[in-house]
Amino acid sequence: MGYGEIDNKAINTIRLLAADATFNSNSGHPGAPMGMAPVAHVLFNKFMKFNPKNPKWLNRDRFVLSNGHGCMLQYAMLHLFGYDLTMDDLKAFRKVDSRTPGHPEAHDTPGIEVTTGPLGQGVCNAVGLAMAQAHTAATFNKPGFDVVDNYTYCFLGDGCLMEGISSEASSLAGHLQLGNLICVYDDNHISIDGDTNCAFTEDVVMRYEAYGWHVVTVDKGDTDLAAMEAAIQKCKDVKDKPSMIKLKTTIGFGSLQQGTGGVHGSPLKADDIKQLKQKWGFNPEQSFHVPKEVYDLYSKHSSEGAAAEEQWNAMLSKYAQQFPKEHADLQRRLKSELPQGWEKNLPVYTPSDSAVATRKLSETVLSKIESAVPELFGGSADLTGSNLTRWKTAVDFQPKSTGLGDYSGRYVRYGVREHSMGAIMNGLAAYGTILPYGGTFLNFVSYAAGAVRLSALSQVRLIWVATHDSIGLGEDGPTHQPIETMAHFRALPNCMVWRPADGNETSAAYYVAMTSKSTPSIMALSRQNLPQLESSTVEKASKGGYVLREVQGADVTLVSTGSEVCICVDAAKYLEDNHKIKARIVSMPCFEVFDSQSKEYRLSVLPDGIPSLSVEVMSTMGWERYTHEQFGINRFGASGAYKDVYKKFEFTPEGIAKRAVATVDFWKSVPNVRSPINRAFQQII
Amino acid sequence: MGYGEIDNKAINTIRLLAADATFNSNSGHPGAPMGMAPVAHVLFNKFMKFNPKNPKWLNRDRFVLSNGHGCMLQYAMLHLFGYDLTMDDLKAFRKVDSRTPGHPEAHDTPGIEVTTGPLGQGVCNAVGLAMAQAHTAATFNKPGFDVVDNYTYCFLGDGCLMEGISSEASSLAGHLQLGNLICVYDDNHISIDGDTNCAFTEDVVMRYEAYGWHVVTVDKGDTDLAAMEAAIQKCKDVKDKPSMIKLKTTIGFGSLQQGTGGVHGSPLKADDIKQLKQKWGFNPEQSFHVPKEVYDLYSKHSSEGAAAEEQWNAMLSKYAQQFPKEHADLQRRLKSELPQGWEKNLPVYTPSDSAVATRKLSETVLSKIESAVPELFGGSADLTGSNLTRWKTAVDFQPKSTGLGDYSGRYVRYGVREHSMGAIMNGLAAYGTILPYGGTFLNFVSYAAGAVRLSALSQVRLIWVATHDSIGLGEDGPTHQPIETMAHFRALPNCMVWRPADGNETSAAYYVAMTSKSTPSIMALSRQNLPQLESSTVEKASKGGYVLREVQGADVTLVSTGSEVCICVDAAKYLEDNHKIKARIVSMPCFEVFDSQSKEYRLSVLPDGIPSLSVEVMSTMGWERYTHEQFGINRFGASGAYKDVYKKFEFTPEGIAKRAVATVDFWKSVPNVRSPINRAFQQII
Repeated sequence: MGYGEIDNKAINTIRLLAADATFNSNSGHPGAPMGMAPVAHVLFNKFMKFNPKNPKWLNRDRFVLSNGHGCMLQYAMLHLFGYDLTMDDLKAFRKVDSRTPGHPEAHDTPGIEVTTGPLGQGVCNAVGLAMAQAHTAATFNKPGFDVVDNYTYCFLGDGCLMEGISSEASSLAGHLQLGNLICVYDDNHISIDGDTNCAFTEDVVMRYEAYGWHVVTVDKGDTDLAAMEAAIQKCKDVKDKPSMIKLKTTIGFGSLQQGTGGVHGSPLKADDIKQLKQKWGFNPEQSFHVPKEVYDLYSKHSSEGAAAEEQWNAMLSKYAQQFPKEHADLQRRLKSELPQGWEKNLPVYTPSDSAVATRKLSETVLSKIESAVPELFGGSADLTGSNLTRWKTAVDFQPKSTGLGDYSGRYVRYGVREHSMGAIMNGLAAYGTILPYGGTFLNFVSYAAGAVRLSALSQVRLIWVATHDSIGLGEDGPTHQPIETMAHFRALPNCMVWRPADGNETSAAYYVAMTSKSTPSIMALSRQNLPQLESSTVEKASKGGYVLREVQGADVTLVSTGSEVCICVDAAKYLEDNHKIKARIVSMPCFEVFDSQSKEYRLSVLPDGIPSLSVEVMSTMGWERYTHEQFGINRFGASGAYKDVYKKFEFTPEGIAKRAVATVDFWKSVPNVRSPINRAFQQII
Repeated sequence: MGYGEIDNKAINTIRLLAADATFNSNSGHPGAPMGMAPVAHVLFNKFMKFNPKNPKWLNRDRFVLSNGHGCMLQYAMLHLFGYDLTMDDLKAFRKVDSRTPGHPEAHDTPGIEVTTGPLGQGVCNAVGLAMAQAHTAATFNKPGFDVVDNYTYCFLGDGCLMEGISSEASSLAGHLQLGNLICVYDDNHISIDGDTNCAFTEDVVMRYEAYGWHVVTVDKGDTDLAAMEAAIQKCKDVKDKPSMIKLKTTIGFGSLQQGTGGVHGSPLKADDIKQLKQKWGFNPEQSFHVPKEVYDLYSKHSSEGAAAEEQWNAMLSKYAQQFPKEHADLQRRLKSELPQGWEKNLPVYTPSDSAVATRKLSETVLSKIESAVPELFGGSADLTGSNLTRWKTAVDFQPKSTGLGDYSGRYVRYGVREHSMGAIMNGLAAYGTILPYGGTFLNFVSYAAGAVRLSALSQVRLIWVATHDSIGLGEDGPTHQPIETMAHFRALPNCMVWRPADGNETSAAYYVAMTSKSTPSIMALSRQNLPQLESSTVEKASKGGYVLREVQGADVTLVSTGSEVCICVDAAKYLEDNHKIKARIVSMPCFEVFDSQSKEYRLSVLPDGIPSLSVEVMSTMGWERYTHEQFGINRFGASGAYKDVYKKFEFTPEGIAKRAVATVDFWKSVPNVRSPINRAFQQII
């Protein structure tokens, strides 16, 4: 074990980089990096397996900074170990377009596994990464070939533990017996409001033991490197439980304000940094200084990591010979590419096929493609029978001792834990070998809004199977009927929200979602049966919006999604029969994908010259972008049989026709009705 | 204690009402009501203090059904005890426009305290109700005058315990030592995915003890009424800790499918109900039957409740004499009316006043009105110093033993627990004596989306102080910068989202929020300083949108909110100087309030004849409803000093002018530009 002067120098270098960078940007959080520098030093230099020259090496240990505001710690480590993150990058901390933003962003910075900062998310991502490792090992490892045997390490703070999302994932991680997950809780007793005594006095050790975790306490987290090393080793030795090290540290260690809220979220004063440097034998006039021997120390560890990767590569070459199929599968997955021809399994429908709920059509898609796409790995937040997310032959992802499945299983019982399901999926996707999906009611994707936002920001591919998508769920009533949800996620950048109207559109939604490598998707699916539409095709629906019914000399365009498209079809007949009004019909299952089509195409769907009316049983917000008039529900729904609820809100052929007539009348006086597709200037996207 | 035949009859009556009602509506959840009928019987008939003839009696015990899908239990109890809920209401269970919707809704049904169903919410509401009781007692009780000494009882299931939100509130409740809160955990081992062994194997007793709760286990929850009574009594006796009774029950007790997932969410079959009735000595041909002796039993308890209220009224009359000021204050609060003249404390500003961040202006409002409005009771989710939610002299709401405050304190340290803060505020508001507010960053109101939705649905008055409202927060970067958040909550029915531009608008936002008795409000407030605008007034801003700058012969209307209004003012000058374009400026701090103005007024603000351009540094979604063109950010933000970030996205006078010029050019060719205020038909609201 033996630690000495060089270790202290390395640790103080980390601390000073954090102090200098936050001072330089006049913004940021020096406290956590200064407090956690010792354990970061021990963990990275004694335990973690990685090769900075190839941050994407599959079998690297994963590191997640759940207290993401302490990111100068992570940036410092990445720089010191020789990742492609220069001293200039550190100097650009928190500056526009730098690779060192205010919180770690996975898509921007080499070595950052997941995007953290919003509290509680990172530890759930870590649970996802650990699940992914367990599943990948169970799928690909062979006797003598440990293709993956990495650990996932996670640092987290009081804030993460207070957030409910961490409770959800921690309870699940305990249930799943994830021995490959080791968390370090920075027990510094300080949050923004001051001493955690003011709001957080629970017994964290007991709580985590209640979840089935292995918990170790290290009292001298500022100085006792040997104890930290012993604790981490002990955690590695416990193979059937996730581990938590409760590490007592001093926030802002060394600062004149150490141990107070004053060092949490504000840079240290110049004088304070000066005394630190003097105290630790650094030149007080120098900033951003790294002693050569510190670079050397870490560089040695990085070389060992590179050597380990080389060894692994050699092993993998042998694996490729003995298990060519598995090897090819793995390589393919790592590129996020789907198996050739997988899409041939997507079902197609004709109007003579029977009416089916889109949640059921989604189940059919999953059942048809699951064997072709073995990286599909999903579950539901305790609504399996309602979301229809489990194909018949699926095996549960469970520890063997439960007798309910094993780690090679691809179906996850998430429990009633939507928010952590979302964050776990972000971790699963980040591992590199898995395409995650998760089910809940559309209304309860809102519980996971914090995680969905990070899926979009960190550009991961995953799928929400969001059933019971409207008032059409009927009797459960307003508490369960989404009104604002589609608008919410349509407003979220880089998030595809689909609301397919039939079987072909459901297949299209899956096709686009699965082939979009850097965008999450939400599938809003009906509880109630919907007919197979005349003239819908997978190809047309894949454009996000298309003409379902063209009419010569049309008076109005009805634009709709999901369960209302078929009512629009009836409304068009009604309009023709009763009002001699000719209605075109556009189905628009996905705004985001439609927006990405050429203007020419979009204008062919929503042309100049005639007014348009959107029809969707929820908030009209956002529809004004595509249509002249909007028929929706800008209030909460109602509890009752779904047909009665539709009737109450007049979402019937007659009710739609009434609005269409009003639309035609209202726009009659305007000579050349301009399509809303025409805009004065381009949006910032 | 002595329980006998009549108790069993009463319990079986409850069970059969649940079975009959779900069968009758062919929808709903019989399992939980049948399993929890015994404990409901014991709790309601032996312990709970209420008067069905006055469901709003202040000192009633509160009951919350956190597993709200079991609402037939609650509806049955309300009916049997003589609340204004008839047998016909039970027969209309889950039918359109009934008072017995699929999940309990507080604003619809007498005796329902809070709206539940979305799992985990109810238990947090219960924590809020218990906090409210503690605070109200500390504020109004006097020696010999226990104005309030009620308990809050809460039933909850496995689902509630899996949801992270319940962890947050439970940890806080333990910290706050809420001895007036007693929860009954329906430990029936079944969730929708089947046996809870598949996902929920944590040690719940240990977890709650870790939170500082008092926990009792009752093993025979189906039959041992005496044990249930003893357990509840024991919990009442523990005064310094919230209590949890872990009650082992059989879901769907009595059914042929008892103890399985089959009885959770689907009605029993006719045969099954028949055998139940035969087994329990009921006429199998009769539905919705209540034996007279059961009505009599419960009616006796209700009479005792009525007598208790009478006694309380007598006590309160004496209280009114001895403490007229307190009594008047209490009566006023119960009507949700504010003290006369309170609004005179709202600060007003002139352009010569200095530039101040709206979060700081919000702090000033709170500081100026807090003594006039003593029901203001708020806090922050660990961001006090950033949200500026605490006035200087505030006392913390804390148990005395912490040495940090006492229950008469009006400032809550919520910890990093946004979602439960939202749900706790719903409970606080439901108690009747409190006007709650809570602070976090606007971006993290999304963590609480599930609770905000229920605030709106259940029509409660409360205020979110949502600071750091845009890319203007700067360095924290995209993980913290809201893009979709305003659109999300603007799309939510019955929710006011304010984004004030200066001091007068901030005062207006508070004025409308505080005087709107049945609508929650979200205040989106800037981190950065904003100038006091020329010609803004509290009165004008109270209309939600108004003309800030009128110009004769204007070419374009700029419509903006919050921190972008002052940039529009500069842009208008720039347009005049550089392009000879005359721009009107409209400030629109709140869509929802603007929508409620007369069409005439709205057209005066957004008139026909000239095109309009919205300017807001976030998603443009929703702005199409008010303006012809939209300048916003339909991508994620950037980490950097806020001025640099604004520059990057061209939210400068020049950048706005460029879009205004494009807007004028684009609409030149249209002869009579029609204001988007004109619509073909009225929306369903």
